[in-house]
Amino acid sequence: MSRVVTFGELLLRLSPPSHLRLTQARSFDLYYGCAEANVAASLSKFGVSVKFITAVPDNELGESSLSMLRSFGVEPISFIQGKRLGIYYFEQGASERPGKVVYDREDSSFSTLKKGMINWEDAFKDADWFHWSGITPSLTLELAEICEEALTVASRMGLTISADLNFRPTLWKYGKKANEIMPNLVQYCDFLLGGADESENVLGITVEENATREEIYTKWMEKFPKLKNIVSTRRIKANASSNGLNAVFWDGKKLYRSQKYYVSHIIDRIGAGDAFMAGIIYGMITWPEDHQMALEFAVAATCLKHSISGDINLATVNEIKALMEGSGGGRVSR
Amino acid sequence: MSRVVTFGELLLRLSPPSHLRLTQARSFDLYYGCAEANVAASLSKFGVSVKFITAVPDNELGESSLSMLRSFGVEPISFIQGKRLGIYYFEQGASERPGKVVYDREDSSFSTLKKGMINWEDAFKDADWFHWSGITPSLTLELAEICEEALTVASRMGLTISADLNFRPTLWKYGKKANEIMPNLVQYCDFLLGGADESENVLGITVEENATREEIYTKWMEKFPKLKNIVSTRRIKANASSNGLNAVFWDGKKLYRSQKYYVSHIIDRIGAGDAFMAGIIYGMITWPEDHQMALEFAVAATCLKHSISGDINLATVNEIKALMEGSGGGRVSR
Amino acid sequence: MSRVVTFGELLLRLSPPSHLRLTQARSFDLYYGCAEANVAASLSKFGVSVKFITAVPDNELGESSLSMLRSFGVEPISFIQGKRLGIYYFEQGASERPGKVVYDREDSSFSTLKKGMINWEDAFKDADWFHWSGITPSLTLELAEICEEALTVASRMGLTISADLNFRPTLWKYGKKANEIMPNLVQYCDFLLGGADESENVLGITVEENATREEIYTKWMEKFPKLKNIVSTRRIKANASSNGLNAVFWDGKKLYRSQKYYVSHIIDRIGAGDAFMAGIIYGMITWPEDHQMALEFAVAATCLKHSISGDINLATVNEIKALMEGSGGGRVSR
Amino acid sequence: MSRVVTFGELLLRLSPPSHLRLTQARSFDLYYGCAEANVAASLSKFGVSVKFITAVPDNELGESSLSMLRSFGVEPISFIQGKRLGIYYFEQGASERPGKVVYDREDSSFSTLKKGMINWEDAFKDADWFHWSGITPSLTLELAEICEEALTVASRMGLTISADLNFRPTLWKYGKKANEIMPNLVQYCDFLLGGADESENVLGITVEENATREEIYTKWMEKFPKLKNIVSTRRIKANASSNGLNAVFWDGKKLYRSQKYYVSHIIDRIGAGDAFMAGIIYGMITWPEDHQMALEFAVAATCLKHSISGDINLATVNEIKALMEGSGGGRVSR
Amino acid sequence: MSRVVTFGELLLRLSPPSHLRLTQARSFDLYYGCAEANVAASLSKFGVSVKFITAVPDNELGESSLSMLRSFGVEPISFIQGKRLGIYYFEQGASERPGKVVYDREDSSFSTLKKGMINWEDAFKDADWFHWSGITPSLTLELAEICEEALTVASRMGLTISADLNFRPTLWKYGKKANEIMPNLVQYCDFLLGGADESENVLGITVEENATREEIYTKWMEKFPKLKNIVSTRRIKANASSNGLNAVFWDGKKLYRSQKYYVSHIIDRIGAGDAFMAGIIYGMITWPEDHQMALEFAVAATCLKHSISGDINLATVNEIKALMEGSGGGRVSR
Amino acid sequence: MSRVVTFGELLLRLSPPSHLRLTQARSFDLYYGCAEANVAASLSKFGVSVKFITAVPDNELGESSLSMLRSFGVEPISFIQGKRLGIYYFEQGASERPGKVVYDREDSSFSTLKKGMINWEDAFKDADWFHWSGITPSLTLELAEICEEALTVASRMGLTISADLNFRPTLWKYGKKANEIMPNLVQYCDFLLGGADESENVLGITVEENATREEIYTKWMEKFPKLKNIVSTRRIKANASSNGLNAVFWDGKKLYRSQKYYVSHIIDRIGAGDAFMAGIIYGMITWPEDHQMALEFAVAATCLKHSISGDINLATVNEIKALMEGSGGGRVSR
Repeated sequence: MSRVVTFGELLLRLSPPSHLRLTQARSFDLYYGCAEANVAASLSKFGVSVKFITAVPDNELGESSLSMLRSFGVEPISFIQGKRLGIYYFEQGASERPGKVVYDREDSSFSTLKKGMINWEDAFKDADWFHWSGITPSLTLELAEICEEALTVASRMGLTISADLNFRPTLWKYGKKANEIMPNLVQYCDFLLGGADESENVLGITVEENATREEIYTKWMEKFPKLKNIVSTRRIKANASSNGLNAVFWDGKKLYRSQKYYVSHIIDRIGAGDAFMAGIIYGMITWPEDHQMALEFAVAATCLKHSISGDINLATVNEIKALMEGSGGGRVSR
Repeated sequence: MSRVVTFGELLLRLSPPSHLRLTQARSFDLYYGCAEANVAASLSKFGVSVKFITAVPDNELGESSLSMLRSFGVEPISFIQGKRLGIYYFEQGASERPGKVVYDREDSSFSTLKKGMINWEDAFKDADWFHWSGITPSLTLELAEICEEALTVASRMGLTISADLNFRPTLWKYGKKANEIMPNLVQYCDFLLGGADESENVLGITVEENATREEIYTKWMEKFPKLKNIVSTRRIKANASSNGLNAVFWDGKKLYRSQKYYVSHIIDRIGAGDAFMAGIIYGMITWPEDHQMALEFAVAATCLKHSISGDINLATVNEIKALMEGSGGGRVSR
Repeated sequence: MSRVVTFGELLLRLSPPSHLRLTQARSFDLYYGCAEANVAASLSKFGVSVKFITAVPDNELGESSLSMLRSFGVEPISFIQGKRLGIYYFEQGASERPGKVVYDREDSSFSTLKKGMINWEDAFKDADWFHWSGITPSLTLELAEICEEALTVASRMGLTISADLNFRPTLWKYGKKANEIMPNLVQYCDFLLGGADESENVLGITVEENATREEIYTKWMEKFPKLKNIVSTRRIKANASSNGLNAVFWDGKKLYRSQKYYVSHIIDRIGAGDAFMAGIIYGMITWPEDHQMALEFAVAATCLKHSISGDINLATVNEIKALMEGSGGGRVSR
Repeated sequence: MSRVVTFGELLLRLSPPSHLRLTQARSFDLYYGCAEANVAASLSKFGVSVKFITAVPDNELGESSLSMLRSFGVEPISFIQGKRLGIYYFEQGASERPGKVVYDREDSSFSTLKKGMINWEDAFKDADWFHWSGITPSLTLELAEICEEALTVASRMGLTISADLNFRPTLWKYGKKANEIMPNLVQYCDFLLGGADESENVLGITVEENATREEIYTKWMEKFPKLKNIVSTRRIKANASSNGLNAVFWDGKKLYRSQKYYVSHIIDRIGAGDAFMAGIIYGMITWPEDHQMALEFAVAATCLKHSISGDINLATVNEIKALMEGSGGGRVSR
Repeated sequence: MSRVVTFGELLLRLSPPSHLRLTQARSFDLYYGCAEANVAASLSKFGVSVKFITAVPDNELGESSLSMLRSFGVEPISFIQGKRLGIYYFEQGASERPGKVVYDREDSSFSTLKKGMINWEDAFKDADWFHWSGITPSLTLELAEICEEALTVASRMGLTISADLNFRPTLWKYGKKANEIMPNLVQYCDFLLGGADESENVLGITVEENATREEIYTKWMEKFPKLKNIVSTRRIKANASSNGLNAVFWDGKKLYRSQKYYVSHIIDRIGAGDAFMAGIIYGMITWPEDHQMALEFAVAATCLKHSISGDINLATVNEIKALMEGSGGGRVSR
Repeated sequence: MSRVVTFGELLLRLSPPSHLRLTQARSFDLYYGCAEANVAASLSKFGVSVKFITAVPDNELGESSLSMLRSFGVEPISFIQGKRLGIYYFEQGASERPGKVVYDREDSSFSTLKKGMINWEDAFKDADWFHWSGITPSLTLELAEICEEALTVASRMGLTISADLNFRPTLWKYGKKANEIMPNLVQYCDFLLGGADESENVLGITVEENATREEIYTKWMEKFPKLKNIVSTRRIKANASSNGLNAVFWDGKKLYRSQKYYVSHIIDRIGAGDAFMAGIIYGMITWPEDHQMALEFAVAATCLKHSISGDINLATVNEIKALMEGSGGGRVSR
């Protein structure tokens, strides 16, 4: 089976239970996760062998975040350094009240990583896929440079490289804009998750207002010739409790469109993009020639993620396939 | 008032709270119930006098399951024997993620019941209705035979006999198929809850693919001449969080159709069929000549059950009537 | 900034968690609030300076109810007397099962207030708005008379006076009908929240069955010449879990209609009217000339309240404005 | 087996979880119980057949309180009348912070009972023991008179009559002192639970400061010649989390002293006296000639009650006997 | 009544429930507090008028921390600035497993306060007591300098000044030792809470190993001539679940010794010192001439704090007095 | 570092929260563990590399039990077969109410293991210690034979072999007595945890009533010449909430006695023996020559276990050493 390596930060998520607002909370439910870790855990649950490279502090929070990954079978390679695990407070939304994230992740252990610390050759040994996301280079300039370190090694060692652009405007605070940093990193990628609204902001590629996705992605591939596939997801008629979902896959020639799902009662939408990313990586590994199949698997995975608490998609391959084959939530499985 | 006797197994249900998955659970909410017990408790809540015959182990779980029934006013007649109370783990579904039942009910106290143990004459004294379901004969051959014991006595003593076919393919494990056992038992019944998809599998009656319900039920009544009424329910546009609901009642001549309800936010759909069954028994007792009324009562009862946690319908007669009369959930009752 | 004074009772609300029914409860979640207090807390959260006049017993429940108000920045002026804090038990509804209120509020400390106890001149010093509701005069005749005391002083001191008719038939138990008491109090009001169905019962004004709201409100203004504005809200296609919402504002000349919201997943609808009332008072203070704006603010406020547990609207001015401007619940706010 | 009848009020108890103070509570744990009901439930758990006569309101709280009793196998005979179930708030103490009860029980359904309502002859048919406590006559004069009604009938029908003096000074509010009412009722009793400090206040019997218990109880028996046995319990070196415990039994000739227990970690001390009372009634029924045995059973029962949450002793006969025989808490029972 | 001003940081405390370890936590209970805020809230609960000066971030956590203070009646004067509220994770200990604090408080809003920001003249207007602790100057050099700002103004305006040395070695990280900073601040104080082990480390005063407290405190008063009173507390035979407690008060002439309490079951020992501090301030205000009385009040206050969850002492003046008068936890208060 | 292999069953433990009795439970807290698994997890937490061999069913419970082990870094080698995970219900005791275990573990996946299934050579490759307990051979005769399989291979490959006799009379149900099976297995052991009361029942070695431990253990070593060390623990003055603790270590020549600890507030005593076992294995590996040191480590480990919820000791090497060095629970660690 393939081996995937991911690299990123683990955060502690603190959420009031039962749809309470942050100001009402007397207790917080506690999850560990974040973009790339969510991808790693979901892939491991699919049966893929995964390493996750990170840094956590030498305290109970750091230890617990790694235990969580281990419980999924992910092998963490973690530097134990720095003084704190980053936090985000998350208030679940409902109906027309949007969910709310309050970040408290600065000065984390992960942000103390320095160039040269990580032995990328070792990390990538026996691996054939490297996944990263736009969160990491948004945190510090050094982390952006570490990404480049990783990408040059991964590239040289012949790994397939995927990225989720994951643009969070409020995170880019160290003086550089996303589109000053990201294009240099995206050039190494074979596979991209990104939407039209990230074209200018993240990739520095201006697109016309009414450009089709085919046109946009064609431009992206022109700028980044190594890119082979681009995917993106779309929410439809969304409020905080329900939305439609579908996705597209562009392979440079054809735009594959997934079936559409309607998520009528969202349990937790955090990590939906990561669930999609894990799904599409699994799909590419499993059905490398069948892009429609890979896409359908990924969008069904993200559909199920909306029904699962926490950052990580706990849906199994069999559950996702059952949904793809039309067996939705209407019958109790006995 | 009428007296109803039911016979069946009590299970312990263990469910993670707050829509968590089984693999996420750090605690389980705990309910006691199962098909016939749910019918018994609901009927008792409607004011009907009910006995429930079962067997439980001599431990705290057995004791608690009987206490639960007593709290509803049901009179349990229980053998205290065997070594364990059966369990089922239940994971609530959401949207397109189906609910999931994991059974761990083998070797239960109930399954140690033997022919000749139960004094059915005593049990049925002063009673006028006996209800059983297809769960019991699915568990062991001996239990199937005990059902027959009960049915012959109930028949002889002139009780009205109802059954819920309740086909669960995964339960029939002792070497007999449902349709090798059930027809022999159904022949004693006056009243049946069963759907078209159970015709072949449970009753051994082949029906044409496009047969109407009138046609199917006519065939059933031909095979089982004692049968007077057949009812069945239908879910419409269902996912794990919402569905439409209606039901039909066949009296050999006419197919009564209930109004249709839309359950937009399911709290717990386990026991929905049992809620219907209790509703229709109550309806038959209360309005023996008005099948439409009985049917409407039963379908409104099952509609309300979907809004109630646990296996047992806690809706009162007044609440069900209010819904039948058009007063739905839109106004707070003060 | 304006200063608002409100007057009313604080109740302890006891609700089973997780949509459990009252008969299933092993614990109650606990909130303090009630009509006018909810208005006070919401206004204080909007940044308005608010006093709340009440009476509570000399025990931990009384103390906690005042602490709750103080936590919002409301200044309580409370008589510490009498023997108990009123209670209401609240069972959350779901789908077609309506929410249910069981009152246990008789003989409360608030109902021991006597005429002459409250120094209304002091209370209204520096204030420019007085708000009361139809709950208070429904409780005891003495409280109705205290309302009149307050209204004559407020009137004389030139405060704007608003009332929420808030008709609860089950509360009027002391021998007078609402329409024997309320008209005498409504005559002092500048601003009214009330619906067509309250015309006869509360105001003693008979209206024709097909009368338009313009016609009804015109009649009201004829009877109560001090009245300048009337507002009312409407639920559309409601069950206990979802409903549409809109509202109207009548200024004697024009009927302003708000945009319509659809609340697809109600978390808690108690206090929705109070949220609207707080919103419209804030709107009148902030945009005294722009009735459409005030109305839109109020209806967006009540829309958000449906997504918030407890009696009190915790939505901020910014959150309400964001919703008015079209930014609903579909995106996580980071 | 003997049949016991008890008569008294059912209260709703509301307690913050986890030793929180009332002012910190965001939720209340909920129990139903009170003096005589606790005795009834414990006796039923011991296998004694018990009826409980009471009145509750026609709402969910009333229904739930009766369901609780039924779950123990107690047969409630309840008038459904009046407007509320009485409440007491209970704050668990810890170490030097005493537990705290805040009563809110006035105007309860039970206090609306009237003389002549209860058919005592029916109630006592087939019974041989009647138990009441000093709580009931403290509530209203009418209830005191109903007690006398019951006592004359029970006396005439030859039942053994027991009472727990249960003096709560704060409850006697209707204008009579306990010692103006209670002696008239105690004269019917065969069996009494009462301590030296209740002699003057409850029975109107002045005792010298240094009187021994033998001397005090001799005086009691002189005043109440029907009295055959008197018991009392004592806490030793008590704080809110731990205390020693023992008890005495006076049969007019000899003072039996129980062994002493040390309760090192109190879980809940509410109902400890009721657990003792149930224990001694069970003991008197089971070992009518062996007062030491009955006493040891009762004090071991109350010792175990301290380890059990809620008002009701859930210890079984076997568990109590095991403790009497020296098998304390030091070994896990497997 | 006196007016007290305190100055310090508000922290968010996150604790696993039910004695779970941090690595086991699936949820955190949430409290807001810290040294000086705990003193402020307790004093306010005693009826003293209190202002609390601090800085919190412009988010829900900051808002909630201020709401908590307001709920006690404390008037917060808060700068809304900086990016985060400091956190400490707290694991309750048990028996021989010590409680554990993991700080994550660096870079908090409070630590962004700058000299000159706070208008101390305004803050101290109408006040007569200023309290601070050694936590604040341990955080940043700027905060130490702000303390001096405050102290010079308070001194000039004639306020009584108290300090709790509160030495936490792990907090002093900015390059200065406590005894390089604290003496300069302590010189302004009238009243000190400090133990012998802080003499060298905090005050730079070397004491002989066997020095009596009289000798030590005499040395302190020599170095800081403004000091009038010194108090300190002592734990005896402590493990994480129980300890004895007493305290001393030195007025330059006489060493007053409090009675000794034994806390047999600790609920929460965080804030015990702050409870003592609030008690002694209240005592000094109420019984300025009776040092024994003030001391007994303070030590009884801290005894009760050990029975209360969270950082803040919720004991009332009456409860503390009852304990002082010998009425401990052994009786339920009704 | 050494590598340890353990072999045994994983159970699901279901416990009511907050000291509730099993019959009161509305929810169960959920832990996975059992004798040998607890040893494995604790050793892994100490930094030892551990494999655990077991069998679990192909469902969510089986998956979760393995995830738990992985989260500690243990490498599970599990057969996925059979139909159920064994369960035990555990009711926490308090004071004189003993804790209670209700087993429901028959017919588990583990009990379906057959001889020849496990490749012991592979399992023991690179390992130097094998640990098993008397639980496994008590379950089925086949499991006893599998133990012998393992022991012969481990013996041949030169691993150190340890066993915990762990005598549970209620488990030996397949027709053999413990002392018919265990001696044959114990003969392979180098290291034993067992008490005097197991001599006759488990090892078939009769000892005189007043025999010293030296005498008893000498007899054991005579019968089992491979045995090098024997340890045992003792509880002193135990009730369900507190006990003293100490232990001894016999090396054939000298009886080492540990210091004594007093656990004043037990949080959870399940797994105390397993915590000791893990401690002594760690001690033997770390200080092979210093038996006193190893013993002190083990007894301090078990002391801390009593303060930790669940079956598994979460104390770290540093925490245990701190306790050994006298730093108990009296100070908060910051």
